[in-house]
Amino acid sequence: MCSTKPIGILDSGFGGLTVVGEVIRQLPQENILYVGDNARCPYGSRPPEEVRKFLFEIIDFLVAQEVKMIIIACNTATAAGLEEARQRYSVPVIGVIVPGSRAAISATKSGRIGVIGTENTINSDAYRRELHRINPRLTVTNRACKPFVRLVEEDLTDTEEARRTVTAYLQPIQTERIDTLILGCTHYPLLAPVIAEVMGEGVALINSAEETAREASTVLSVSQQLHDQNPQPQYKFYTTGDTEYFRQIGGRWLHRDIEVASVALGG
Amino acid sequence: MCSTKPIGILDSGFGGLTVVGEVIRQLPQENILYVGDNARCPYGSRPPEEVRKFLFEIIDFLVAQEVKMIIIACNTATAAGLEEARQRYSVPVIGVIVPGSRAAISATKSGRIGVIGTENTINSDAYRRELHRINPRLTVTNRACKPFVRLVEEDLTDTEEARRTVTAYLQPIQTERIDTLILGCTHYPLLAPVIAEVMGEGVALINSAEETAREASTVLSVSQQLHDQNPQPQYKFYTTGDTEYFRQIGGRWLHRDIEVASVALGG
Repeated sequence: MCSTKPIGILDSGFGGLTVVGEVIRQLPQENILYVGDNARCPYGSRPPEEVRKFLFEIIDFLVAQEVKMIIIACNTATAAGLEEARQRYSVPVIGVIVPGSRAAISATKSGRIGVIGTENTINSDAYRRELHRINPRLTVTNRACKPFVRLVEEDLTDTEEARRTVTAYLQPIQTERIDTLILGCTHYPLLAPVIAEVMGEGVALINSAEETAREASTVLSVSQQLHDQNPQPQYKFYTTGDTEYFRQIGGRWLHRDIEVASVALGG
Repeated sequence: MCSTKPIGILDSGFGGLTVVGEVIRQLPQENILYVGDNARCPYGSRPPEEVRKFLFEIIDFLVAQEVKMIIIACNTATAAGLEEARQRYSVPVIGVIVPGSRAAISATKSGRIGVIGTENTINSDAYRRELHRINPRLTVTNRACKPFVRLVEEDLTDTEEARRTVTAYLQPIQTERIDTLILGCTHYPLLAPVIAEVMGEGVALINSAEETAREASTVLSVSQQLHDQNPQPQYKFYTTGDTEYFRQIGGRWLHRDIEVASVALGG
Protein backbone atom coordinates (compact mmCIF):
# COMPACT_ATOMS: atom_id res chain seq x y z
CA MET A 1 0.00 0.00 0.00
CA CYS A 2 1.17 3.51 -0.80
CA SER A 3 -0.09 6.97 -1.66
CA THR A 4 1.16 9.05 -4.59
CA LYS A 5 -0.32 12.29 -3.21
CA PRO A 6 2.09 15.07 -2.25
CA ILE A 7 3.08 16.16 1.26
CA GLY A 8 1.98 19.74 2.03
CA ILE A 9 4.52 21.89 3.86
CA LEU A 10 3.93 25.49 4.96
CA ASP A 11 5.69 28.38 6.64
CA SER A 12 5.35 32.11 7.00
CA GLY A 13 8.31 32.46 4.62
CA PHE A 14 11.61 30.71 3.88
CA GLY A 15 12.37 29.02 7.22
CA GLY A 16 10.30 25.94 6.40
CA LEU A 17 12.64 25.21 3.49
CA THR A 18 15.02 23.50 5.95
CA VAL A 19 12.19 21.04 6.56
CA VAL A 20 11.68 20.68 2.78
CA GLY A 21 15.41 19.92 2.41
CA GLU A 22 15.20 17.21 5.06
CA VAL A 23 12.05 15.66 3.56
CA ILE A 24 13.85 15.52 0.20
CA ARG A 25 16.84 13.85 1.88
CA GLN A 26 14.99 11.37 4.09
CA LEU A 27 12.00 10.68 1.83
CA PRO A 28 13.48 11.08 -1.66
CA GLN A 29 10.46 9.57 -3.39
CA GLU A 30 7.81 11.92 -2.02
CA ASN A 31 6.18 14.75 -3.99
CA ILE A 32 6.02 18.07 -2.13
CA LEU A 33 3.81 21.18 -2.25
CA TYR A 34 5.18 24.15 -0.31
CA VAL A 35 3.45 27.39 0.62
CA GLY A 36 5.47 30.36 1.92
CA ASP A 37 3.24 33.14 3.19
CA ASN A 38 5.93 35.76 2.51
CA ALA A 39 3.44 38.59 1.96
CA ARG A 40 2.33 38.33 5.59
CA CYS A 41 5.69 37.32 7.11
CA PRO A 42 6.77 37.40 9.94
CA TYR A 43 3.99 35.76 11.97
CA GLY A 44 5.87 36.22 15.26
CA SER A 45 4.47 39.61 16.20
CA ARG A 46 0.84 38.83 15.27
CA PRO A 47 -1.88 37.75 17.72
CA PRO A 48 -2.41 33.95 17.83
CA GLU A 49 -5.98 34.22 16.45
CA GLU A 50 -4.64 35.96 13.35
CA VAL A 51 -1.87 33.36 12.93
CA ARG A 52 -4.49 30.59 13.19
CA LYS A 53 -6.64 32.30 10.54
CA PHE A 54 -3.65 32.48 8.15
CA LEU A 55 -2.69 28.89 8.97
CA PHE A 56 -6.14 27.52 8.16
CA GLU A 57 -6.26 29.52 4.90
CA ILE A 58 -3.02 27.85 3.81
CA ILE A 59 -4.13 24.39 4.95
CA ASP A 60 -7.45 24.82 3.11
CA PHE A 61 -5.47 25.56 -0.05
CA LEU A 62 -3.19 22.53 0.44
CA VAL A 63 -6.09 20.20 1.24
CA ALA A 64 -7.82 21.37 -1.96
CA GLN A 65 -4.65 20.21 -3.80
CA GLU A 66 -5.20 16.77 -2.20
CA VAL A 67 -2.10 16.51 -0.04
CA LYS A 68 -1.85 13.37 2.12
CA MET A 69 -0.26 15.15 5.10
CA ILE A 70 0.36 18.67 6.41
CA ILE A 71 3.64 19.77 7.97
CA ILE A 72 3.45 23.11 9.79
CA ALA A 73 7.13 24.04 9.33
CA CYS A 74 6.88 27.18 11.45
CA ASN A 75 7.32 27.40 15.22
CA THR A 76 4.90 30.31 15.67
CA ALA A 77 2.11 28.67 13.64
CA THR A 78 2.69 25.32 15.37
CA ALA A 79 2.38 26.92 18.81
CA ALA A 80 -0.72 28.87 17.74
CA GLY A 81 -2.67 26.27 15.81
CA LEU A 82 -1.42 22.66 15.72
CA GLU A 83 -4.01 21.25 18.13
CA GLU A 84 -6.92 23.01 16.47
CA ALA A 85 -5.69 22.00 13.00
CA ARG A 86 -5.69 18.36 14.09
CA GLN A 87 -9.35 18.64 15.16
CA ARG A 88 -10.28 20.49 12.00
CA TYR A 89 -8.73 18.40 9.22
CA SER A 90 -8.88 14.69 8.46
CA VAL A 91 -5.35 14.52 6.98
CA PRO A 92 -2.58 14.04 9.58
CA VAL A 93 -0.98 17.31 10.71
CA ILE A 94 2.46 17.54 12.32
CA GLY A 95 4.35 20.56 13.62
CA VAL A 96 7.98 21.37 14.36
CA ILE A 97 7.88 21.60 18.16
CA VAL A 98 6.94 18.07 19.20
CA PRO A 99 9.48 16.24 16.99
CA GLY A 100 12.36 18.31 18.35
CA SER A 101 11.18 17.72 21.91
CA ARG A 102 10.87 13.99 21.38
CA ALA A 103 14.32 13.75 19.79
CA ALA A 104 15.83 15.65 22.73
CA ILE A 105 14.18 13.25 25.19
CA SER A 106 15.67 10.35 23.25
CA ALA A 107 19.13 11.96 23.09
CA THR A 108 19.63 13.27 26.62
CA LYS A 109 21.42 11.17 29.21
CA SER A 110 21.54 13.77 32.00
CA GLY A 111 17.97 15.02 31.62
CA ARG A 112 19.27 18.60 31.21
CA ILE A 113 18.04 20.12 27.92
CA GLY A 114 18.53 23.58 26.41
CA VAL A 115 16.21 25.28 23.92
CA ILE A 116 17.10 28.21 21.69
CA GLY A 117 14.65 30.03 19.42
CA THR A 118 13.19 33.38 18.47
CA GLU A 119 11.83 35.60 21.23
CA ASN A 120 8.29 34.60 20.35
CA THR A 121 8.98 30.89 20.49
CA ILE A 122 10.85 31.15 23.77
CA ASN A 123 8.15 33.40 25.27
CA SER A 124 5.45 30.92 24.23
CA ASP A 125 7.28 28.33 26.38
CA ALA A 126 5.97 25.68 23.97
CA TYR A 127 9.09 23.49 23.98
CA ARG A 128 9.34 23.39 27.77
CA ARG A 129 5.66 22.54 28.05
CA GLU A 130 5.95 19.72 25.52
CA LEU A 131 9.12 18.35 27.16
CA HIS A 132 7.48 18.39 30.59
CA ARG A 133 4.24 16.92 29.30
CA ILE A 134 6.18 13.80 28.29
CA ASN A 135 8.67 13.83 31.18
CA PRO A 136 8.03 16.22 34.10
CA ARG A 137 11.46 15.48 35.64
CA LEU A 138 13.55 17.15 32.88
CA THR A 139 15.49 20.34 33.56
CA VAL A 140 14.89 22.79 30.70
CA THR A 141 16.81 25.99 30.02
CA ASN A 142 15.40 28.46 27.47
CA ARG A 143 17.29 31.18 25.60
CA ALA A 144 16.00 33.61 22.98
CA CYS A 145 18.60 34.32 20.27
CA LYS A 146 17.18 37.28 18.44
CA PRO A 147 19.96 38.02 15.88
CA PHE A 148 20.35 34.44 14.60
CA VAL A 149 17.58 34.68 11.97
CA ARG A 150 19.18 37.77 10.44
CA LEU A 151 22.58 36.03 10.23
CA VAL A 152 20.92 33.27 8.19
CA GLU A 153 18.74 35.47 6.00
CA GLU A 154 21.69 37.73 5.14
CA ASP A 155 23.85 34.69 4.34
CA LEU A 156 26.38 35.50 7.11
CA THR A 157 26.52 32.02 8.69
CA ASP A 158 30.21 31.45 7.93
CA THR A 159 31.57 34.74 9.24
CA GLU A 160 33.42 36.11 12.24
CA GLU A 161 30.29 38.09 13.12
CA ALA A 162 28.30 34.84 13.32
CA ARG A 163 30.90 33.21 15.60
CA ARG A 164 31.01 36.26 17.86
CA THR A 165 27.21 36.55 18.09
CA VAL A 166 26.62 32.85 18.66
CA THR A 167 29.30 32.72 21.36
CA ALA A 168 27.79 35.69 23.18
CA TYR A 169 24.23 34.38 23.06
CA LEU A 170 25.05 30.80 24.05
CA GLN A 171 27.33 31.65 26.95
CA PRO A 172 24.53 31.75 29.59
CA ILE A 173 23.29 28.34 28.46
CA GLN A 174 26.77 26.81 28.68
CA THR A 175 26.85 27.20 32.45
CA GLU A 176 23.72 25.04 32.78
CA ARG A 177 25.53 21.72 32.10
CA ILE A 178 23.03 20.67 29.42
CA ASP A 179 23.89 17.65 27.23
CA THR A 180 21.28 18.35 24.54
CA LEU A 181 20.36 21.58 22.74
CA ILE A 182 17.21 21.98 20.64
CA LEU A 183 17.57 24.31 17.64
CA GLY A 184 14.03 25.60 18.07
CA CYS A 185 13.81 27.72 14.93
CA THR A 186 13.68 26.51 11.34
CA HIS A 187 16.45 28.94 10.39
CA TYR A 188 18.99 27.61 12.89
CA PRO A 189 20.12 24.42 11.10
CA LEU A 190 22.07 26.72 8.75
CA LEU A 191 24.00 27.98 11.80
CA ALA A 192 24.54 24.45 13.19
CA PRO A 193 28.29 24.25 12.39
CA VAL A 194 29.00 27.42 14.38
CA ILE A 195 26.66 26.41 17.22
CA ALA A 196 28.34 22.98 17.42
CA GLU A 197 31.76 24.62 17.57
CA VAL A 198 30.68 26.92 20.39
CA MET A 199 28.85 24.28 22.45
CA GLY A 200 31.56 21.62 22.08
CA GLU A 201 31.46 17.85 21.69
CA GLY A 202 29.54 16.95 24.84
CA VAL A 203 26.32 18.60 23.64
CA ALA A 204 24.02 16.91 21.10
CA LEU A 205 22.32 19.39 18.75
CA ILE A 206 18.71 18.61 17.86
CA ASN A 207 17.81 19.86 14.39
CA SER A 208 14.03 20.36 14.37
CA ALA A 209 13.88 20.19 10.57
CA GLU A 210 15.61 16.80 10.51
CA GLU A 211 13.39 15.45 13.29
CA THR A 212 10.20 16.77 11.72
CA ALA A 213 11.00 15.05 8.41
CA ARG A 214 11.65 11.87 10.31
CA GLU A 215 8.31 12.08 12.10
CA ALA A 216 6.60 12.63 8.76
CA SER A 217 8.25 9.42 7.61
CA THR A 218 6.98 7.58 10.71
CA VAL A 219 3.41 8.81 10.34
CA LEU A 220 3.26 7.97 6.61
CA SER A 221 4.80 4.57 7.23
CA VAL A 222 2.42 3.57 10.03
CA SER A 223 -0.60 4.75 7.98
CA GLN A 224 0.85 2.90 4.96
CA GLN A 225 0.99 6.03 2.82
CA LEU A 226 4.70 6.18 1.92
CA HIS A 227 5.37 6.72 -1.78
CA ASP A 228 7.88 3.99 -2.63
CA GLN A 229 7.88 3.96 -6.44
CA ASN A 230 8.74 7.49 -7.46
CA PRO A 231 12.25 8.03 -8.81
CA GLN A 232 11.37 11.50 -10.23
CA PRO A 233 9.50 13.32 -7.47
CA GLN A 234 7.88 16.70 -8.11
CA TYR A 235 8.36 19.78 -5.97
CA LYS A 236 6.01 22.76 -6.33
CA PHE A 237 6.49 26.04 -4.48
CA TYR A 238 3.85 28.71 -3.91
CA THR A 239 4.35 32.09 -2.33
CA THR A 240 1.98 34.88 -1.39
CA GLY A 241 4.87 37.27 -2.08
CA ASP A 242 7.22 37.95 -4.98
CA THR A 243 7.81 34.78 -7.00
CA GLU A 244 11.16 35.86 -8.46
CA TYR A 245 12.57 36.73 -5.03
CA PHE A 246 11.33 33.40 -3.66
CA ARG A 247 12.93 31.57 -6.59
CA GLN A 248 16.31 33.20 -5.82
CA ILE A 249 16.36 32.78 -2.03
CA GLY A 250 14.61 29.42 -2.03
CA GLY A 251 17.00 28.09 -4.67
CA ARG A 252 19.95 29.13 -2.53
CA TRP A 253 18.54 27.42 0.58
CA LEU A 254 17.77 24.18 -1.25
CA HIS A 255 20.84 24.14 -3.55
CA ARG A 256 18.63 23.53 -6.60
CA ASP A 257 16.60 25.43 -9.18
CA ILE A 258 12.95 25.70 -8.18
CA GLU A 259 9.78 26.76 -9.93
CA VAL A 260 7.61 29.14 -7.98
CA ALA A 261 3.97 30.10 -8.53
CA SER A 262 1.91 32.83 -6.96
CA VAL A 263 -1.00 32.10 -4.67
CA ALA A 264 -3.59 34.52 -3.25
CA LEU A 265 -4.97 33.73 0.18
CA GLY A 266 -7.62 35.34 2.40
CA GLY A 267 -8.94 38.65 1.20
CA MET B 1 -6.74 14.48 25.00
CA CYS B 2 -4.95 11.41 26.32
CA SER B 3 -5.38 7.70 26.88
CA THR B 4 -4.67 5.92 30.16
CA LYS B 5 -4.58 2.45 28.53
CA PRO B 6 -1.27 0.54 28.60
CA ILE B 7 1.11 -0.03 25.70
CA GLY B 8 1.44 -3.72 24.79
CA ILE B 9 4.97 -4.95 24.04
CA LEU B 10 5.85 -8.49 23.03
CA ASP B 11 8.85 -10.65 22.19
CA SER B 12 9.77 -14.31 21.95
CA GLY B 13 11.70 -13.91 25.20
CA PHE B 14 13.87 -11.34 26.94
CA GLY B 15 15.21 -9.31 23.98
CA GLY B 16 12.18 -7.01 23.87
CA LEU B 17 13.05 -5.79 27.36
CA THR B 18 15.54 -3.34 25.79
CA VAL B 19 12.49 -1.76 24.12
CA VAL B 20 10.63 -1.76 27.47
CA GLY B 21 13.62 0.01 29.07
CA GLU B 22 13.55 2.68 26.37
CA VAL B 23 9.77 3.18 26.60
CA ILE B 24 10.17 3.64 30.37
CA ARG B 25 12.95 6.18 29.74
CA GLN B 26 11.34 8.15 26.90
CA LEU B 27 7.69 7.83 27.96
CA PRO B 28 7.96 7.70 31.76
CA GLN B 29 4.21 8.18 32.27
CA GLU B 30 2.99 5.23 30.19
CA ASN B 31 1.68 1.95 31.63
CA ILE B 32 3.15 -1.17 29.99
CA LEU B 33 2.03 -4.78 29.51
CA TYR B 34 4.79 -7.12 28.31
CA VAL B 35 4.49 -10.67 27.03
CA GLY B 36 7.61 -12.84 26.65
CA ASP B 37 6.85 -16.10 24.83
CA ASN B 38 9.79 -17.84 26.54
CA ALA B 39 8.19 -21.30 26.35
CA ARG B 40 8.37 -21.21 22.54
CA CYS B 41 11.62 -19.17 22.22
CA PRO B 42 13.56 -18.80 19.96
CA TYR B 43 11.31 -17.94 17.01
CA GLY B 44 14.24 -17.68 14.60
CA SER B 45 14.29 -21.27 13.42
CA ARG B 46 10.50 -21.61 12.99
CA PRO B 47 8.59 -21.24 9.69
CA PRO B 48 7.05 -17.75 9.23
CA GLU B 49 3.47 -19.12 9.30
CA GLU B 50 4.10 -20.55 12.75
CA VAL B 51 5.68 -17.29 13.97
CA ARG B 52 2.63 -15.39 12.68
CA LYS B 53 0.29 -17.79 14.50
CA PHE B 54 2.20 -17.21 17.80
CA LEU B 55 2.31 -13.47 17.16
CA PHE B 56 -1.46 -13.19 16.66
CA GLU B 57 -2.10 -15.31 19.78
CA ILE B 58 -0.07 -12.82 21.82
CA ILE B 59 -1.67 -9.77 20.21
CA ASP B 60 -5.16 -11.25 20.81
CA PHE B 61 -4.24 -11.55 24.50
CA LEU B 62 -2.91 -7.96 24.66
CA VAL B 63 -5.91 -6.54 22.78
CA ALA B 64 -8.21 -8.32 25.25
CA GLN B 65 -6.34 -6.40 28.01
CA GLU B 66 -7.29 -3.19 26.14
CA VAL B 67 -3.85 -1.92 25.16
CA LYS B 68 -3.79 1.27 23.06
CA MET B 69 -0.83 0.19 20.90
CA ILE B 70 1.17 -2.95 20.07
CA ILE B 71 4.98 -2.95 19.78
CA ILE B 72 6.40 -6.11 18.20
CA ALA B 73 9.80 -5.94 19.94
CA CYS B 74 11.21 -8.91 18.04
CA ASN B 75 12.95 -8.80 14.67
CA THR B 76 11.79 -12.26 13.56
CA ALA B 77 8.14 -11.62 14.42
CA THR B 78 8.27 -8.16 12.83
CA ALA B 79 9.64 -9.59 9.58
CA ALA B 80 7.06 -12.40 9.60
CA GLY B 81 3.89 -10.58 10.61
CA LEU B 82 3.95 -6.78 10.94
CA GLU B 83 2.05 -6.05 7.72
CA GLU B 84 -0.64 -8.68 8.37
CA ALA B 85 -1.00 -7.54 12.00
CA ARG B 86 -1.66 -4.00 10.76
CA GLN B 87 -4.49 -5.27 8.54
CA ARG B 88 -5.89 -7.47 11.28
CA TYR B 89 -6.06 -5.15 14.30
CA SER B 90 -7.53 -1.70 14.78
CA VAL B 91 -4.92 -0.59 17.36
CA PRO B 92 -1.70 0.81 15.85
CA VAL B 93 1.06 -1.80 15.50
CA ILE B 94 4.76 -0.94 15.18
CA GLY B 95 7.76 -3.21 14.77
CA VAL B 96 11.50 -2.88 15.39
CA ILE B 97 12.78 -2.94 11.80
CA VAL B 98 11.29 0.21 10.32
CA PRO B 99 12.27 2.60 13.19
CA GLY B 100 15.90 1.50 12.99
CA SER B 101 15.89 1.93 9.22
CA ARG B 102 14.37 5.38 9.42
CA ALA B 103 16.83 6.52 12.08
CA ALA B 104 19.72 5.29 9.93
CA ILE B 105 18.41 7.25 6.94
CA SER B 106 18.23 10.33 9.12
CA ALA B 107 21.75 9.79 10.54
CA THR B 108 23.78 8.87 7.46
CA LYS B 109 25.67 11.55 5.54
CA SER B 110 27.48 9.24 3.09
CA GLY B 111 24.51 6.97 2.29
CA ARG B 112 26.58 3.91 3.32
CA ILE B 113 24.79 1.94 6.04
CA GLY B 114 25.72 -1.31 7.81
CA VAL B 115 23.28 -3.73 9.45
CA ILE B 116 24.16 -6.41 12.00
CA GLY B 117 21.72 -8.97 13.38
CA THR B 118 21.05 -12.64 13.94
CA GLU B 119 21.41 -15.01 11.00
CA ASN B 120 17.65 -15.13 10.55
CA THR B 121 17.25 -11.37 10.48
CA ILE B 122 20.13 -10.90 8.04
CA ASN B 123 18.90 -13.76 5.83
CA SER B 124 15.41 -12.22 5.76
CA ASP B 125 17.02 -9.10 4.22
CA ALA B 126 14.25 -7.09 5.91
CA TYR B 127 16.42 -4.09 6.85
CA ARG B 128 17.90 -3.73 3.38
CA ARG B 129 14.46 -3.94 1.79
CA GLU B 130 13.04 -1.31 4.14
CA LEU B 131 16.05 1.02 3.62
CA HIS B 132 15.76 0.68 -0.16
CA ARG B 133 12.00 1.06 -0.13
CA ILE B 134 12.49 4.55 1.31
CA ASN B 135 15.72 5.40 -0.54
CA PRO B 136 16.85 3.08 -3.38
CA ARG B 137 20.22 4.85 -3.67
CA LEU B 138 21.62 3.74 -0.30
CA THR B 139 24.52 1.28 -0.10
CA VAL B 140 23.69 -1.38 2.50
CA THR B 141 26.12 -3.93 3.97
CA ASN B 142 24.70 -6.83 6.01
CA ARG B 143 26.54 -8.98 8.55
CA ALA B 144 25.18 -11.81 10.69
CA CYS B 145 26.78 -11.88 14.15
CA LYS B 146 25.74 -15.22 15.54
CA PRO B 147 27.55 -15.27 18.92
CA PHE B 148 26.44 -11.80 20.07
CA VAL B 149 23.13 -12.95 21.61
CA ARG B 150 24.92 -15.54 23.76
CA LEU B 151 27.37 -12.88 25.02
CA VAL B 152 24.40 -10.83 26.22
CA GLU B 153 22.32 -13.69 27.66
CA GLU B 154 25.32 -15.05 29.59
CA ASP B 155 26.11 -11.55 30.93
CA LEU B 156 29.54 -11.45 29.24
CA THR B 157 29.20 -8.01 27.61
CA ASP B 158 32.07 -6.43 29.57
CA THR B 159 34.69 -9.13 28.99
CA GLU B 160 37.77 -9.74 26.87
CA GLU B 161 35.84 -12.49 25.05
CA ALA B 162 33.20 -9.93 24.03
CA ARG B 163 35.83 -7.50 22.70
CA ARG B 164 37.58 -10.27 20.76
CA THR B 165 34.35 -11.65 19.27
CA VAL B 166 32.94 -8.23 18.34
CA THR B 167 36.23 -7.20 16.73
CA ALA B 168 36.37 -10.39 14.65
CA TYR B 169 32.75 -10.16 13.47
CA LEU B 170 32.78 -6.44 12.64
CA GLN B 171 36.08 -6.46 10.74
CA PRO B 172 34.51 -7.24 7.32
CA ILE B 173 32.02 -4.39 7.76
CA GLN B 174 34.77 -1.91 8.69
CA THR B 175 36.26 -2.05 5.20
CA GLU B 176 32.93 -0.85 3.69
CA ARG B 177 33.38 2.77 4.78
CA ILE B 178 29.93 2.94 6.41
CA ASP B 179 29.09 5.94 8.59
CA THR B 180 26.01 4.38 10.25
CA LEU B 181 25.52 0.93 11.79
CA ILE B 182 22.09 -0.48 12.69
CA LEU B 183 22.07 -2.76 15.75
CA GLY B 184 19.42 -5.00 14.18
CA CYS B 185 18.75 -7.22 17.18
CA THR B 186 17.04 -6.29 20.43
CA HIS B 187 19.89 -7.88 22.41
CA TYR B 188 22.63 -5.75 20.88
CA PRO B 189 22.12 -2.45 22.77
CA LEU B 190 23.71 -4.21 25.76
CA LEU B 191 26.85 -4.69 23.63
CA ALA B 192 26.80 -1.10 22.32
CA PRO B 193 29.81 0.13 24.37
CA VAL B 194 32.05 -2.59 22.90
CA ILE B 195 30.64 -2.15 19.38
CA ALA B 196 31.22 1.63 19.60
CA GLU B 197 34.81 1.06 20.71
CA VAL B 198 35.49 -1.30 17.81
CA MET B 199 33.78 0.81 15.12
CA GLY B 200 35.31 4.10 16.27
CA GLU B 201 34.00 7.67 16.39
CA GLY B 202 33.10 8.11 12.72
CA VAL B 203 30.27 5.56 12.83
CA ALA B 204 26.87 6.37 14.35
CA LEU B 205 25.26 3.39 16.09
CA ILE B 206 21.50 3.03 15.65
CA ASN B 207 19.86 1.41 18.68
CA SER B 208 16.63 -0.17 17.41
CA ALA B 209 15.14 -0.27 20.90
CA GLU B 210 15.69 3.47 21.37
CA GLU B 211 14.26 4.27 17.93
CA THR B 212 11.24 2.00 18.38
CA ALA B 213 10.34 3.70 21.67
CA ARG B 214 10.65 7.03 19.95
CA GLU B 215 8.33 5.97 17.12
CA ALA B 216 5.81 4.77 19.71
CA SER B 217 5.96 8.27 21.17
CA THR B 218 5.36 9.80 17.73
CA VAL B 219 2.40 7.59 16.92
CA LEU B 220 0.73 8.15 20.31
CA SER B 221 1.36 11.87 20.08
CA VAL B 222 -0.13 12.28 16.59
CA SER B 223 -3.18 10.18 17.54
CA GLN B 224 -3.46 12.21 20.78
CA GLN B 225 -3.15 9.14 22.99
CA LEU B 226 -0.10 10.03 25.11
CA HIS B 227 -0.62 9.50 28.85
CA ASP B 228 0.55 12.77 30.37
CA GLN B 229 -0.77 12.62 33.96
CA ASN B 230 0.67 9.43 35.39
CA PRO B 231 3.52 9.88 37.88
CA GLN B 232 3.25 6.23 39.08
CA PRO B 233 3.05 4.09 35.93
CA GLN B 234 2.34 0.36 36.17
CA TYR B 235 4.42 -2.33 34.47
CA LYS B 236 3.07 -5.88 34.16
CA PHE B 237 5.07 -8.76 32.75
CA TYR B 238 3.67 -12.04 31.47
CA THR B 239 5.65 -15.06 30.34
CA THR B 240 4.64 -18.37 28.80
CA GLY B 241 7.71 -19.85 30.54
CA ASP B 242 8.99 -19.99 34.10
CA THR B 243 7.89 -16.89 36.05
CA GLU B 244 10.69 -17.02 38.63
CA TYR B 245 13.39 -17.26 35.94
CA PHE B 246 11.79 -14.36 34.05
CA ARG B 247 11.69 -12.33 37.24
CA GLN B 248 15.43 -12.84 37.79
CA ILE B 249 16.66 -12.24 34.23
CA GLY B 250 14.12 -9.51 33.44
CA GLY B 251 14.95 -7.72 36.68
CA ARG B 252 18.64 -7.73 35.75
CA TRP B 253 17.95 -6.33 32.26
CA LEU B 254 15.70 -3.57 33.56
CA HIS B 255 17.64 -2.76 36.73
CA ARG B 256 14.46 -2.98 38.82
CA ASP B 257 12.29 -5.52 40.63
CA ILE B 258 9.47 -6.76 38.44
CA GLU B 259 6.34 -8.80 39.05
CA VAL B 260 5.76 -11.60 36.59
CA ALA B 261 2.59 -13.60 35.93
CA SER B 262 2.10 -16.73 33.88
CA VAL B 263 0.06 -16.74 30.68
CA ALA B 264 -1.06 -19.73 28.60
CA LEU B 265 -1.35 -19.17 24.85
CA GLY B 266 -2.51 -21.36 21.95
CA GLY B 267 -3.23 -25.02 22.68
